[in-house]
Amino acid sequence: MEHTYKSIEITGSSKTGTDDAIRNAIAKAAQTITNLHWFEVVSTRGYIEDGKVQYWQVTLKIGFRLED
Amino acid sequence: MEHTYKSIEITGSSKTGTDDAIRNAIAKAAQTITNLHWFEVVSTRGYIEDGKVQYWQVTLKIGFRLED
Amino acid sequence: MEHTYKSIEITGSSKTGTDDAIRNAIAKAAQTITNLHWFEVVSTRGYIEDGKVQYWQVTLKIGFRLED
Amino acid sequence: MEHTYKSIEITGSSKTGTDDAIRNAIAKAAQTITNLHWFEVVSTRGYIEDGKVQYWQVTLKIGFRLED
Amino acid sequence: MEHTYKSIEITGSSKTGTDDAIRNAIAKAAQTITNLHWFEVVSTRGYIEDGKVQYWQVTLKIGFRLED
Amino acid sequence: MEHTYKSIEITGSSKTGTDDAIRNAIAKAAQTITNLHWFEVVSTRGYIEDGKVQYWQVTLKIGFRLED
Amino acid sequence: MEHTYKSIEITGSSKTGTDDAIRNAIAKAAQTITNLHWFEVVSTRGYIEDGKVQYWQVTLKIGFRLED
Amino acid sequence: MEHTYKSIEITGSSKTGTDDAIRNAIAKAAQTITNLHWFEVVSTRGYIEDGKVQYWQVTLKIGFRLED
Amino acid sequence: MEHTYKSIEITGSSKTGTDDAIRNAIAKAAQTITNLHWFEVVSTRGYIEDGKVQYWQVTLKIGFRLED
Amino acid sequence: MEHTYKSIEITGSSKTGTDDAIRNAIAKAAQTITNLHWFEVVSTRGYIEDGKVQYWQVTLKIGFRLED
Amino acid sequence: MEHTYKSIEITGSSKTGTDDAIRNAIAKAAQTITNLHWFEVVSTRGYIEDGKVQYWQVTLKIGFRLED
Amino acid sequence: MEHTYKSIEITGSSKTGTDDAIRNAIAKAAQTITNLHWFEVVSTRGYIEDGKVQYWQVTLKIGFRLED
Repeated sequence: MEHTYKSIEITGSSKTGTDDAIRNAIAKAAQTITNLHWFEVVSTRGYIEDGKVQYWQVTLKIGFRLED
Repeated sequence: MEHTYKSIEITGSSKTGTDDAIRNAIAKAAQTITNLHWFEVVSTRGYIEDGKVQYWQVTLKIGFRLED
Repeated sequence: MEHTYKSIEITGSSKTGTDDAIRNAIAKAAQTITNLHWFEVVSTRGYIEDGKVQYWQVTLKIGFRLED
Repeated sequence: MEHTYKSIEITGSSKTGTDDAIRNAIAKAAQTITNLHWFEVVSTRGYIEDGKVQYWQVTLKIGFRLED
Repeated sequence: MEHTYKSIEITGSSKTGTDDAIRNAIAKAAQTITNLHWFEVVSTRGYIEDGKVQYWQVTLKIGFRLED
Repeated sequence: MEHTYKSIEITGSSKTGTDDAIRNAIAKAAQTITNLHWFEVVSTRGYIEDGKVQYWQVTLKIGFRLED
Repeated sequence: MEHTYKSIEITGSSKTGTDDAIRNAIAKAAQTITNLHWFEVVSTRGYIEDGKVQYWQVTLKIGFRLED
Repeated sequence: MEHTYKSIEITGSSKTGTDDAIRNAIAKAAQTITNLHWFEVVSTRGYIEDGKVQYWQVTLKIGFRLED
Repeated sequence: MEHTYKSIEITGSSKTGTDDAIRNAIAKAAQTITNLHWFEVVSTRGYIEDGKVQYWQVTLKIGFRLED
Repeated sequence: MEHTYKSIEITGSSKTGTDDAIRNAIAKAAQTITNLHWFEVVSTRGYIEDGKVQYWQVTLKIGFRLED
Repeated sequence: MEHTYKSIEITGSSKTGTDDAIRNAIAKAAQTITNLHWFEVVSTRGYIEDGKVQYWQVTLKIGFRLED
Repeated sequence: MEHTYKSIEITGSSKTGTDDAIRNAIAKAAQTITNLHWFEVVSTRGYIEDGKVQYWQVTLKIGFRLED
C-alpha cells in the first residue's frame, strides 16, 4: 500500500550519554504517537557544568505512519 | 495583513513516480489541514524490489497559513 | 531533570523588518503553546512590490518543553 | 579549446509536473540565450490551492558557453 | 499563467544595520529591473573599523518575473 | 538480524525524463548486483541541445544488502 | 603585502534585537583583540520567556589581521 | 610515500547502540578489504518498533589504502 | 545580563567509544578554560587497525562564557 | 560610501591546472565587466581522457561593484 | 545513447601540491578502470610536519562510464 | 595514547596562487604554535584588480596536538 509518513523533531536529554538521550526522546514520543517507524539524528549537543557533561541532548527527526 | 505560516514534513509514496508521490502527500495532508499554501521537496528516495522501484517516496515540507 | 523538547517550524511576517517578523512568529506560537524555550532562524525572505520590501518573512525553528 | 561558461538561475513553472517545469524554464532561457549547455536542479517547490498542486516550480542553474 | 522567474545575487551595504542593507540592495536593483518579486538572504557580513561595524553587508538572491 | 548495507553512486540518463533516468540507473545496477534495497536522489542534471533537454541525468545513491 | 588573518567564533547577546547582539559581540572582542577586520553571521538564535524574546543571540565569525 | 586511498559507504546495524553499529560495519568491511584506515560517520538512523529502537543504523565512509 | 560566549573546536579521542571521546575533549578543555557551557558534535571519525577501531575521534565545538 | 555589488557565476577551464582555470575565468569576465572586485571558488571539476586530466574546470562566483 | 556512470571516491596525495595530488589520484584509478570521464574535488587536506606541508591530500569523486 | 587536538581557522594570502597561500598560512601559524598536524581547506577566495587576481586567499582549518 501507498502509506504516508509524518516526521517531527524531538530533542531528548540524558545524564548518561547519547544513546540514552535518543531512547528517552523516542519513549516520550511513544506516549502520544503510535506507529513510530524510524529516527534520524539531526544534532548532538550537551550542557557542561564544572567541566563535565551534565546533560547530553540529541535532536532527532522521528517518522511515523499516518492512518490510511 | 501579516500572516503566520507553519510548515510540517510529510513523506508521500507512490508506485508510479515522483510527481505522484508528491500529489499523494499533499492529498493526505489536505484531509486534516486547510489553507495548505506551498510545498518544497526535501528528499527523493525509493524502495527497490527485484531490481525495480517498488515505491517512490518524496519527503516534502508543506506550509499552511495559521488562522489569524 | 531530563526534559524532552519539540521544535516546530513557523514563518512570521512583518511590514517593518526582520526582528519584528521574528517577534510576530513567536507571539503567534505563544497563543497555543506554553513553555516556548528558544528559536533559531532558518531563513530570511521577503516579498517586493514597486521596488520595495512589502513583507519581511522569517522562518524559525521554535522549541518548547514537553510536559514531563 | 579552453571555453568559458556562465550559469544563471531560472525558475520555471508548470501546471503539469516537475519535468514540464524544467522544460518551460529552458525554453524561456533559449529565447534570448544561445549555446545553452547543461542544467542542474536547485530546488523543487510548488503552490497549492484547494488541497492540490496548482503550480509546480523548479529552480535551475542553467549553464551556457560564452563566445570565445 | 505559467510564469518564469530569474534570480540574481546582489550585495547591499549600509552604515546603519542589516535591514537597511537589504533595502539598499533592492532599491539599487529596482533602478534597472522591473517586476522584482521576492528576495532571500544568502549571507550577512560586515566590515569593522576601530572595533565597530563600519559597513553592514547583506547578500541577497533577488527574483523577478521575466516578460512572457 | 543485524544486516550490513553498502551504497554506491550511479548516474542514470534518459531522453524522456527524470523518473526514467532513475529507472535506467537501477536497471543497470541490477544487472550485476543482487539485493538492491533503496535509492536516494543526489542530484538532477541534464544536457541541453538546440534549446531542449537532450539527456536527463539523475545521480543516485543505491543501497544493497551485503551477504551475511 | 601578503597578510594573514585569524577568525574566531563569538556569540553576542542582546535584549534589543539581532543587530545589537552583533554590535555587542564585536565590542567584547575589541576589548582584547586589535585589527578586527570583518564578521560573518553563522547563526541567529534566541531565548524565549513568557512568550517573548528575552535574549537575542547571534553567533559570528570575526576575522582579524595577525601581526606581520 | 605518496599513497592513494579509496573510501566506500557502508551502513552497519546493531540491536545495542550506535558504537556497536559502527563496529559491526567495520568488521564486515574487514572480511573482504585489507588496509582499512579510517572511518567517518555520515548519518545515524534507526528503526523503531513498539516505541523502542529495534535497530540502530550508522552509515560510515570507510577509507582504505590502495596497493601501490 | 547580556553575556558573550566564545566557541572553540576540539577533537577528543578514546579507545572506548564516542561518548568517552567527548568526555575526554571536555576534560582537556576544562584544564585551562573555566565557564565551559555547552558542546556540539561537529564530526565523528576514527582510526582503524587490524580491522578494528583503534581510536574514536569526535570533534566538538565547545562554548564558554567570556568574563564580563 | 554605501556600494552595491553583483555577483555572477562563471566556469573557467584550462589544460594546465586549477589556478590557471581561475585566471582564465576572470580574464574572460574582465572583457565585458569593469570593477571586478573579488572571486570565490564554488567547485573544482575536470574532464578526463586517456586516464589524464584534459580540462580543469573551476566554477567561481565573481563579484563586481555596480555604478553608483 | 543513454549511458550509465558510476562514481567512486579516491584520495590522492602528493609532496608537491594540490593539482599534483589530483593527477596522482586519477593516474592510480586509471590503472584498473577504463572510461574515466570526470572528477570533482570533494575536499582538500594535508599533513604538516615541522611547520610545513608534508603531504597534500585531495579527495575526488571520479566518474566513469559503465559498459552498455 | 589518547591525544587531544585543537583546530583554528587561518586565512593565508599570496600573490602567486592557491598552494602558496596555504603555505603562507601554515608558516605564519608555525611561528607561534608547535605540533601543527593537519589542515583542511575551508574556502578559496581572492581579490581582483585591473581584471587580474591581485591576492589569492585560502581559509584553512589547521589542527594541532595539545600537550598531554
